[in-house]
Amino acid sequence: MSLLMSKQRIKAFLSFNSKIQRISKVQLHRMTKMFPPIREAKIDKKIETISTEPMFDHNIISSQHSGLFTLLPFGLRAVEKLINIIDAQMKKAGCQKLYLPHLTSTSLWKKSGRYDDCGSEIFRLHDSKNHEYLLSPTHEEAITSLVSSFQPLSHSNLPIYVYQISTKFRDEKRSKHGLLRSREFLMKDLYTFDKNLTAAKDTYKTIVNVYDDLFTNLGIPFKKVKANVGTIGGIKSHEFHVLSDVGEDSILSCTSCGFSANIDVLSDEHLNTCQSCGTALITKKGIEVGHSFLLGTKYSVPLSAQFKDEDGFHPMYMGCYGIGITRLLAAGIEVLSTENQLIWPKNLAPFKVCLIPPKRGSKEECASHWCYHLEYLINEIANYKDEVVVDDRLKLTVGKRYNYAKEFGFPIIIIVGKSAVNRIPMFELFQENNKMVLSQSDLLQYLKTH
Amino acid sequence: MSLLMSKQRIKAFLSFNSKIQRISKVQLHRMTKMFPPIREAKIDKKIETISTEPMFDHNIISSQHSGLFTLLPFGLRAVEKLINIIDAQMKKAGCQKLYLPHLTSTSLWKKSGRYDDCGSEIFRLHDSKNHEYLLSPTHEEAITSLVSSFQPLSHSNLPIYVYQISTKFRDEKRSKHGLLRSREFLMKDLYTFDKNLTAAKDTYKTIVNVYDDLFTNLGIPFKKVKANVGTIGGIKSHEFHVLSDVGEDSILSCTSCGFSANIDVLSDEHLNTCQSCGTALITKKGIEVGHSFLLGTKYSVPLSAQFKDEDGFHPMYMGCYGIGITRLLAAGIEVLSTENQLIWPKNLAPFKVCLIPPKRGSKEECASHWCYHLEYLINEIANYKDEVVVDDRLKLTVGKRYNYAKEFGFPIIIIVGKSAVNRIPMFELFQENNKMVLSQSDLLQYLKTH
Repeated sequence: MSLLMSKQRIKAFLSFNSKIQRISKVQLHRMTKMFPPIREAKIDKKIETISTEPMFDHNIISSQHSGLFTLLPFGLRAVEKLINIIDAQMKKAGCQKLYLPHLTSTSLWKKSGRYDDCGSEIFRLHDSKNHEYLLSPTHEEAITSLVSSFQPLSHSNLPIYVYQISTKFRDEKRSKHGLLRSREFLMKDLYTFDKNLTAAKDTYKTIVNVYDDLFTNLGIPFKKVKANVGTIGGIKSHEFHVLSDVGEDSILSCTSCGFSANIDVLSDEHLNTCQSCGTALITKKGIEVGHSFLLGTKYSVPLSAQFKDEDGFHPMYMGCYGIGITRLLAAGIEVLSTENQLIWPKNLAPFKVCLIPPKRGSKEECASHWCYHLEYLINEIANYKDEVVVDDRLKLTVGKRYNYAKEFGFPIIIIVGKSAVNRIPMFELFQENNKMVLSQSDLLQYLKTH
Repeated sequence: MSLLMSKQRIKAFLSFNSKIQRISKVQLHRMTKMFPPIREAKIDKKIETISTEPMFDHNIISSQHSGLFTLLPFGLRAVEKLINIIDAQMKKAGCQKLYLPHLTSTSLWKKSGRYDDCGSEIFRLHDSKNHEYLLSPTHEEAITSLVSSFQPLSHSNLPIYVYQISTKFRDEKRSKHGLLRSREFLMKDLYTFDKNLTAAKDTYKTIVNVYDDLFTNLGIPFKKVKANVGTIGGIKSHEFHVLSDVGEDSILSCTSCGFSANIDVLSDEHLNTCQSCGTALITKKGIEVGHSFLLGTKYSVPLSAQFKDEDGFHPMYMGCYGIGITRLLAAGIEVLSTENQLIWPKNLAPFKVCLIPPKRGSKEECASHWCYHLEYLINEIANYKDEVVVDDRLKLTVGKRYNYAKEFGFPIIIIVGKSAVNRIPMFELFQENNKMVLSQSDLLQYLKTH
């Protein structure tokens, strides 16, 4: 009888495996095929941050040169998920996406006045015709010049909300903590153009609310604080901070009225008590993950971004709104993780499910086919398509692979283990601190609703 | 009766419009809201290429500085579609995606020997610590160094297929024809690492077949030709060319046996007759859109990308495989388009459907609601989600907007016109050279199957 079951199972396994191969749209993910190969975590961990070393150890990022990082396949999957979420939020807010060149002529920065303000943190270079360019850290000049090139624009063409997601460059002298402070980083930068200050202020409110929603939906605790406009300039500015001891900004907050500001904007007499309600302020360190600027006409006047109405030509009122995508991912991981376990912001784990088949040569090995069977069925659930990785390092015990999956932070871990050889096979599903032992149909039902 | 219908329709319109607004996942696309605003095509067209000027006129690309292009929202939509198609093909072939820094230390290029070979076409710069970097045109050194950093690797870790899609830089002195030859461009670059030459040759065959499929599926006519390995080096190389008079390479082809080569690789005595079968060769110009190299150990030896087996350490055998994404899009448009009409490669048009409601003040205006009704229903069809743009420039006649849509190359144009006021409203659907007059249900049925 048990031999018969085994034959049936082998047949089922083969049939399902070939079925999986035929589903060309789903790439099968196997730990043994992952580049780079999975490694043992290093023992000599630095303790400055909780997550930076584990992100190296777990093949999320890699670095060959100071401040320059490769997003490895695991890391890029997380980043692409974050990009998709941000794209959806931006488009919902009526923003249109474009893609500007990375090289900006310094002639534009001379027009805006930023060329002299920005120091050695900007990478500069000359082309073979000796024209000077910079590797853009932001694109206020480039986008304003672009908008201006479509003159004449009328008031009916406004507002214009345009954004891009691209690599930005900054020659950080103190690049550190992995993606938290790097010299190349992915940024979402939105630029808005309105017909007057009132409209620009309304836009500002709208986008700041979008940011609130975005960070909240990602499950990343953040604080919106008053900030200095700095070299980018403008009328007012807010920063979005993830509070963490590894942050480099000092954030003062009032526990009573909710007032919050970067220490940069407070005068000496306001450093101790809240300027709104007089309560004592508390100080925490913050990692800046987003920044909004009400720019006014700082760029539109020198770069001639105008519109026409019945009264003639007027400069547009601008805003700019950045999110450091790679930094946001890293900051989220840093504040959510524990010393023993990476925890990813909501919906950003590289794979939602890690499936663990039995060890080779173990008593449960005859149940291995259930693993690939489950892989197929879970991929059929819309929200889990392309979200399953099988840890097929069959030389390792299930326990060892479970520990790895836990450390890595896969939100759902499913073990095909001892109970999978039952007449009605049962599977162990782990999510957060819960363990469930479920039949196949219950397991699929659970996933459909989680 | 007609008044009653009209009231019902207005009610239906309002109800559907609010329903559309509630579908937060679908962004509504309106020509009047597009940035940049739609313009009249310029009369003084240059005639060197068929498509470059129309791509500027139709807000697909824009340029502020020589050889540097912005992908405007229409252009970026097409590029993102092409990226998704390439991603799917790469993943189907078992490739893993990562993202390397754009800056590569020139110390790596000195190790590989490419630093001296590559002339002034490489952008170079120094950081504030006077370390020299280049803006990578390709990443052989960077990826080989990355792979090497994960030593020790065993034969069981091979093959490694890793690719990225990112902006590449080349300081072209003769940048021209828009995206066909620009100084920043999007490229897909795949690097493969095998345990020996035989395995590397098998990989080469596999990837070249993937390229064949890709170009074929896009409906872009191409020719695979023998090519020079140039400064990238290696054992053998093929280029993928789109044949066009604006191409800069000379491609010699035999009409009898199918032999095809870039003129660069042929010795003088083989320029006239086929070296395989003796037939006279014909010469055409080609735009290089893809390039494959069997690299051998050119990079793995100097940069120590080794693996270990029972006999000790061995260098890996590499291949590299590029596709110029922005150039492929532009080359496809160039060879498919006519003088009066852009024609996009298959599945790459920025929107599949352009919907045209009646002119404001026209007799048909009372049928306008059907347009937004259709927009909603078409968005419900899986393949058409987010694929509808409404040309709501209601001041313009339907005819004028139809001509615009035709010139732009929307694959499907739907007019809500005279027949939409019938008791059973009928709509005009145009695809390629066919015109159909369809009821709502027939129209939806047609789209579901096309």
